[in-house]
Parts: sequence; C-alpha cells; structure tokens
Amino acid sequence: MPYRAPVSEYEFLLRHVVGYDQIAATERFAEADFDVATAILTEAGKLCDEVMAPLNRNGDLQPAVLENGVVRTSPGFSDGFKAIAEGGWIGMSAPQDHGGMGLPMALTTAVNEMMSGACLALQLAPLMSQGQIEALEHHASDALKDLYLPKLISGEWSGTMNLTEPQAGSDVGALTSKAEPNGDGTYAVSGQKIFISWGDNDITGNVCHLVLARLPDGVPGTKGISLFLVPKYLPDENGNPGKANSLKVVSLEHKMGLHGSPTCVMQYDGATGWLVGKEHGGMAAMFTMMNNARLGVGGQGVGAGEGAYQHALAYALERKQGKTPSGTIVDHADVRRMLLEMRAELFAARAILLACATAIDMQTATGEADWSARAALLTPIAKAFGTDTGIFVSETGVQVHGGMGFIEETGAAQYYRDVRVTAIYEGTNGIQAMDLVARKMMDGGEAASRLLDEIQDQAERARATQPEMAEAVWQSAETLREATEWLVSQGQMNDRFAGAVPYLKGFARVLGGHYHLAAALADPSGPAAALARFYIDRMLPEHSALLAHAQCGAEDLYALSIDDLGRG
Amino acid sequence: MPYRAPVSEYEFLLRHVVGYDQIAATERFAEADFDVATAILTEAGKLCDEVMAPLNRNGDLQPAVLENGVVRTSPGFSDGFKAIAEGGWIGMSAPQDHGGMGLPMALTTAVNEMMSGACLALQLAPLMSQGQIEALEHHASDALKDLYLPKLISGEWSGTMNLTEPQAGSDVGALTSKAEPNGDGTYAVSGQKIFISWGDNDITGNVCHLVLARLPDGVPGTKGISLFLVPKYLPDENGNPGKANSLKVVSLEHKMGLHGSPTCVMQYDGATGWLVGKEHGGMAAMFTMMNNARLGVGGQGVGAGEGAYQHALAYALERKQGKTPSGTIVDHADVRRMLLEMRAELFAARAILLACATAIDMQTATGEADWSARAALLTPIAKAFGTDTGIFVSETGVQVHGGMGFIEETGAAQYYRDVRVTAIYEGTNGIQAMDLVARKMMDGGEAASRLLDEIQDQAERARATQPEMAEAVWQSAETLREATEWLVSQGQMNDRFAGAVPYLKGFARVLGGHYHLAAALADPSGPAAALARFYIDRMLPEHSALLAHAQCGAEDLYALSIDDLGRG
Repeated sequence: MPYRAPVSEYEFLLRHVVGYDQIAATERFAEADFDVATAILTEAGKLCDEVMAPLNRNGDLQPAVLENGVVRTSPGFSDGFKAIAEGGWIGMSAPQDHGGMGLPMALTTAVNEMMSGACLALQLAPLMSQGQIEALEHHASDALKDLYLPKLISGEWSGTMNLTEPQAGSDVGALTSKAEPNGDGTYAVSGQKIFISWGDNDITGNVCHLVLARLPDGVPGTKGISLFLVPKYLPDENGNPGKANSLKVVSLEHKMGLHGSPTCVMQYDGATGWLVGKEHGGMAAMFTMMNNARLGVGGQGVGAGEGAYQHALAYALERKQGKTPSGTIVDHADVRRMLLEMRAELFAARAILLACATAIDMQTATGEADWSARAALLTPIAKAFGTDTGIFVSETGVQVHGGMGFIEETGAAQYYRDVRVTAIYEGTNGIQAMDLVARKMMDGGEAASRLLDEIQDQAERARATQPEMAEAVWQSAETLREATEWLVSQGQMNDRFAGAVPYLKGFARVLGGHYHLAAALADPSGPAAALARFYIDRMLPEHSALLAHAQCGAEDLYALSIDDLGRG
Repeated sequence: MPYRAPVSEYEFLLRHVVGYDQIAATERFAEADFDVATAILTEAGKLCDEVMAPLNRNGDLQPAVLENGVVRTSPGFSDGFKAIAEGGWIGMSAPQDHGGMGLPMALTTAVNEMMSGACLALQLAPLMSQGQIEALEHHASDALKDLYLPKLISGEWSGTMNLTEPQAGSDVGALTSKAEPNGDGTYAVSGQKIFISWGDNDITGNVCHLVLARLPDGVPGTKGISLFLVPKYLPDENGNPGKANSLKVVSLEHKMGLHGSPTCVMQYDGATGWLVGKEHGGMAAMFTMMNNARLGVGGQGVGAGEGAYQHALAYALERKQGKTPSGTIVDHADVRRMLLEMRAELFAARAILLACATAIDMQTATGEADWSARAALLTPIAKAFGTDTGIFVSETGVQVHGGMGFIEETGAAQYYRDVRVTAIYEGTNGIQAMDLVARKMMDGGEAASRLLDEIQDQAERARATQPEMAEAVWQSAETLREATEWLVSQGQMNDRFAGAVPYLKGFARVLGGHYHLAAALADPSGPAAALARFYIDRMLPEHSALLAHAQCGAEDLYALSIDDLGRG
C-alpha cells in the first residue's frame, strides 16, 4: 500500500485552523507565504512517498547491526538520509547564515510528521540533528557554530543527544558522567550513556554527540550538569574528521520496534569534548534541544499514526467480507467508526502540533512573552497527545485488519511496535503531564486561561452557524477552566501529579474540539464539518470523566499498601 | 521476576463477589465446596508458578517452527503440556464418565486465567482441546465420544478448531471447504484453513481437527455448513494413531507475538472425517465450542494482563529514580495511578469472567433459562472487556517500565505483543459487541434489565455503609438502562452496530462498578474497598461518554465519502 503524505490536510490546517497567516505576516517569515508553504509541503511529500516510504519495511526486517564496533544501517537508509539532506530538509528552520532555510517551525513540523509516517526509524536521524542544531545555535560559541552548524545542516555530519544513564532516566540529575578540563579549553568526558538513538551510523562523515556530564566542581543534581559536544572524530585543522575520539558503541539494544534506528549504549573514556553554554548550565541548553525534540516526537506519533491509518483504510477498501454495498468491510458500521475515530484523532493531534509550532514561530518573530508561554504550555500536550494518538491509531489499525493485523507481513503490526517508544522517549508522557501541571502552571494558569478565552470566543462566534457544536465546545472549555483552577490551587504538588495524565488528556480533548470547530467553520457543509461533528458528538464527551479524574488528589493513591498492591 | 498466580484474589472473588456459594449449593456441584475450590486453585497455582511461567520467554525467543512438515514446539513446551495434562487440568470441567473432573466452569475459568498469566502461548493448547471436548460432548455420536473424549481429556491427543479461510473470517458463511460422503459413514474433507492455533505439534500422539465444511447439498451461507472431526492420524482398530490422514501444515504464520503458539495454514485434500452433529448443523456445534472459547480467551486477556501487572509492579519496586520515601518509583503519584488502574481494571475484568462462568454453571446445574440468558449476555462482554483489559494493562505495564519497557529483554514488551491477538481471535471484539447489541438483545433487553435490577438492588443495600459509591453505581446502572432501552428500540440494526463497541465498553464499566462495590461491602475497611473507591471515583465516570457515544446512530458514520476518508 503506497503511503501518500497528507499534504492537503496540512494546507487546510495551516490556512484555516492554526492561523498560519499570522506567521506569514511577520517580517521574520515574510518570504514564507502560503504559496511557498504549499510548494515546500508538496516537494517534501514527494520525498516521503517516493524515497522514504519504500524503506520502512527494510528497517524492520533488516535492523541496524553493530559490526566490529561500527553501526551498519538498514539497506537503503544511507541513500534515504542523503536524499533528506540534499533536499535541505534537515536545516529547514536552521539559520540561513549557516546554510539553513530559516523557515517557520510550522512547516518543519509538518514535514517532520510526513516523514515520520513514511519511515519513522530513518526520520529519527535528522530529527536528532535538528535538536542539536538548535542547541548549538542558542548556546555554543561562535567557533563551534562555524565549524559544526554547516556540516550538521548539510547532513555531512549528524548529531545525537546523550542524557540517559542506567541509573538516571527521568531523573537526569542523578547522572554520574564526568568531565575534566584538559587545560587547553577542551574537556575529557567519561561515562556510560544508554538509549542513544542513532548513536552511530555508516552514513555520515562524523557523529557529533551532545553529552551531559558533571565538572569536578559541579554540585549534585541538575544544577551541577554541563553540556559537551563530543565528536566521534576530532576535527583536524581544516575541520575535516581526523583522529578517532575516545568513545565507542558498546552494544545496540534489542527493541520491540523501530529496528531501523540503532539505539546505542555509548562509552566515553576521557573523550575530548567542548563546552556548550556555561559551566553547570547544561540543563538550560538541554532544554532547548528537548523542547524542539518533544514537538518533533509528538509529530512522530502523529506521523506513524497517519501511516497506520492509510494502511488500515487501504485494507478496509480491499477486504471483501460480509454483505455490504461495496462488498468490502469499509461499509461496516464498526469499521467506519474505527476509521473515523482514527481520522478525527489524527486531525486533533496534528492541529495541536501545528498550534504549538505556530506559537514558537510567533515567539521567534515577535519576541512576545504570550507566544512564548503558549508554546511552553502546548509542548507537553503536543508530545504526549501526539504520541498517545499514534499508539491509539496504530492499535486501532491492527484491529481493522482483523487476523491479518497480527501477521507481520501485513505491516500494521510494525506501526504498532514502532510507535510505542514515542510515548516513552524524550520524557515519558507521565513526565510531560507533570511538566504541564507544575512548571507550565507556575503562572497560576494564566497561559491556559488565555487559551481558554480564545476557545470560548471562537465558540461564541460559532453559535450562529453551528449552535450544537459551539455549545459543546464552550462547555468543555468551561469544565477545563474549572479543573485548571482546581489544579493551580493545590498546595501539595503531589495532588496535581496524581491527576496529571488525565488532565493532559482532558486538555487535549478540549483542544481537539476547538480545532475541529475551527475546521467546521471553514468548511461548514464539507467533510471537515462532518468529521468535526463526529468528534464533538462521540469523542469530546470523554473530557468530562478525564477532568473529574484529574481532580481526585493524591490521597487515595496511597490507600493501598505495597503489600496490598502485590499478590498474596 | 517470578510470576505468582493470583490464588487469593480468586478466592476472594468466588467467596464474596460472584456468589460461588450458589454453585456449591447445587446438587450437580455439591462436591466442589470452598475447601475443594481453594485446594484446586492452590494446586493449579503451583503448576503455573513452577512449571509454566519459566517457559514463557522460551516461546518468544525460540518460536515454534515447521520442519519437514512437522511442527517443532518451543523448548520445554512438551514437558509443560504434559504436566498440565497429568494434573488433569485439561478436563477439569469435562464429564467424569470420560475421565474428566466435572468441576464448575468457574474454577476452570480461574485456572485457565492463571495459566495464561504464566505462559499464554502454551496455555492456548489445552484451551483449544477444552473447546473441542465440549463440542464433542454435546454434538458427537457416542462412538466418537468414547474414542476421542478420554484421549483429549487426558492430553494424550489434542484438539483444534478450523473455521477461518482466506476469504472467510468474521463471515464464516463464506467458506468454501468441501466434504463429500465416502459411502462408509465417513467424509472426504478438502480445503484450506488459516490461522489454526496449535494446528500441529510434536507433543501429543494425535492432533484432532474440528473442521467446518460444506456438504454437496449444503446451501450457501452458514446454514449449509457442517462440522467434521478430522484427525491427523486415522485411529486403527484399537483406537491408536494409525495411517496418516490426507492433511498437512502448509506453513506457520510470522506473527507480532505469541510465537510459542504455532499458527498454521492447514491443507485438507480429501482427508477422512467424521460428521459431528447433524448435516448442515455445523454452526450450532461450532457455537458451543466458540462460547466456551470466548470465555477462555477473555481469561487469556486477563491472565496476560496479570502477568504484565506483576512484572510492572516488581520493576516499580526495584527501580530507583527521584526522591521518594522508598527511593523507588513506586511512590511516584503517576506510577501509583498506573498500577492502581491496572489492578482495578483486572479486578473488574476478572469478576465479569467469573460471573459469566458462574451463570454457565448455574445453567448446567439448574437448567433455568434465566441463567442461560445471563451467560449468553455476559460472554461477549467477558471476551471483549477481558482482552481489552489485557491490552490496556500490558500497554500501561510497558509505560511503567519507561525506556526499559521498549527493550525486549525486560519482558514487558512480550506481554504487550502476545496479548494483542486476543482482541482479534475467537471473533474480534467488534464482532463481540455486535453479538451483544443484536443477538443478545433479541429478548428486548430483558436479560440486561434483570442484571441491572440486581446491580441497583445491591447499590440500594450499600447506601447505608457506602453511600457515595452506592449512588455512583446506582446512577451508572440507570444510564446503562437508558442506553439499553434506546438500543433495543432501534429498528435499523446498523444504528445499534454504530455504537456497539462503546456500548459494550460502557456496560463493562458499570459491571466493574457493581463488582467493586460488592468487594467493598465484603471488605469495608480493607484494600478491596480502597480499590473500589479508586475505580468508582476515577474510572466508572467513563461510562457516561461511552454510553452517549453508543446512542449516536449510524448516519454520521457515512457522512464522509470514501474519497473524503482518503488523502487528496
């Protein structure tokens, strides 16, 4: 079943739902008008359909392997990566003075998601480079930028992130990797890092690792962590890959999915590194990279979901079974329900992604704090809901296939296995939810409240033409407002954490209603309005139980003892 | 992490929640009192913990393979199967006059579920035999019973079900396999069958296939189908395996999980078979087998979920991360929430399973039509909700593990992959939901109404001691009653089908509340009441959106054209 990147869906979303016109109206992004955006999406779509999608099964069937200390990537991945690089797609939003295109994140987000649907395992490689580019752009010295950025942007070199250690996952502050000054401005970095996506490859001329480690005078916890750029090969005086650095890939993980992406255990033994940002300022630099990556991973979820949806729809259109007008299962009510739930949920998740990217672009273009707060608020929702949606859609896609869904050759199972990690890496979805109810509510819920005002304003405007949908969305926003007020009034942070995940899910439900309503207003008698009605009638009501769950507090979570939790 | 079968949970459920005392009070099951039940569960638990659980990874790492036309099973599976057989566990509920133990299905259901948690792939083998035993018991000639039942019950031989063909899955009536009379009372069966679980093995002396096929005068559709017993080896005059029959395993499927269970494509080329039941009466006989198997598959879902839960709990208790009283992640609010959701959902699903099995036993013991209707009503819910719960719990179990959940060595991923098929085979969960809203509502909702009366009666009794929980459960039953009345009043069956899955899920939510409340009444200040409160506060409210969804009708499902569903 050939994958087709959802270009027209993105055009519709940009034009009618998330307000791309605001971005194009800024001086910063004046060159990226709708015509340019459409041309870019179309061109990226071709690459997805023709180059990347045909590689997807290769990654699963012939995983990356470690041979004599070097990662050999899946067949075709090298050509695929080079095609992405040559198209300029790695540096779409990177600064133009280092070879990037300086385009809005809204477009990069769309392109990344389309590529994820085509081949998730391969797309993760440029996504990692993008995060590194952004971290270097904001935190590295000019000398590092001048040397590394052009090569990362062109795809000549690639980038990775090294945060996790065996005893330091969600609790990054527990890491034990060390860095000691060499006296010449460089540092000797030592330690073991795990779960390093694309930690090595046989495609790019160098692999540049951003490594979190502690300087000798670094205090315990996150405040004593610094960030270092540690390349696989030390650049020579001409900036070309020279002597091998003191680092190696110890092993590759054997994973449930995403087999085309080499997940490495990395060992650093006094490897030469350069400080990025300030001493002990590693977390700030890392957050730049992570926020970018979180949005990107949200897009991975949606993209994989899109692939799974198209796969399931194609099967439903060809599978003959039972007596239906078409003779195929697509006419069965329950199959339709599944397909529409998938489609409606993908629309909602995609709109949230793009709204988040739009806020980032407006922040870049205007420097206004409200946009910054909007981006910060939406990032954990875009990540967690995008990836939950990917899992939900791929899970439903397996079900649409019936027995064939459990058979690997069909391909539906691969989406289900591959996408599962997206709810885990770049901060588990639980961590995202905790970020939402704690850090992102440090403003007392003000950013959320402004967003809710917008949702209710649009609902008011919609009352004239879509009264029932408008009322449902307005009420859901009111329920979310009450839940938010309850949350921010909790003095004990654990009472917020106890309902963080259902709160995030409920928030996403309400946002989904809002963006579907926007679509219905733009296309009042077309398919967008029909899909909006489906979502608002059948899926939006779930916000109510989720937001009630969000307000239960922590006490009952500890009413069962550890012994009670176990089995007698 | 050693698996421990949840024996005490079952004792509690039997004693306090599903009314096992009614079963033990009947003449038919007078010998199976609580002491006997406890002894049986304890003995089965030992087999699960000591023999079966250690085999679980073998099935995943060293799948069954086809060598020279013969299936070679995973290491240790042969000894495991023989231990199950020698313990008498295959024939627990089989008739005593053929070597069975004649015990209540409530106990068999519990044992099957515990075994599923230990090793799902292996447990599927005796489950298939149990279905065949029940079909033969009710539909076969005495000669067939006398020959086959003792050997199936002892585990000397094993049984399979052959329904599905490439073009006939959920639509069984489309099958094309043929049977022609040989003139000597036997039939020549020909055709290809797919997805045949344990279609062959190197453990038992014979493999007995129950095959659906059409006689020359069979009309098209399900009414022209007959059932045949087709053994791998034709019994000689002494009833021992003799000449090989004209059938073979063509290939094994390459599946997402359950690798220890050989899923076969079977080819029959004029294979000798014996008619089971009447000519053209195959579906009736098949339904006997399927109803048994549906309850069993629901138990597989719950069992796999139990394994995943124990795995996740053990990890949460040992994984150090962040600052918590214990130093491990089990104290984090969000991890607790996940564990409690898993635990509460498993309790609900297990109670529904046992309530269904109890109704079957009471029907067997009393012959009363109300019990028969209760069993029929609960079977699709037990199957679909049990397996949905297995998927939900194993999915959450992966999340509790964080990054380690995606690594195969951890074992969490195997539960997630293995259990996925249970929502598909033995009738997809969509088919179960359609069965619930159509066939099981042919009584105008009477059986459902009687169950709702019981739920509200218990809630009334609970008002004195658990007023809040009682009110929540009472109201949820009222909402379910309204949804049921709406459903049965729909003249167009498609309007029922459009909401069938959310209706079944909503029904299960309400039943979960009911059984949790029963537990709270029995253990008002203990962990059962605490878990009940968690469920009723946080999870029961979901019924409302589900049951609203159930009443949306079919029209909006067809508001988007096929072109609209696709991507432009």
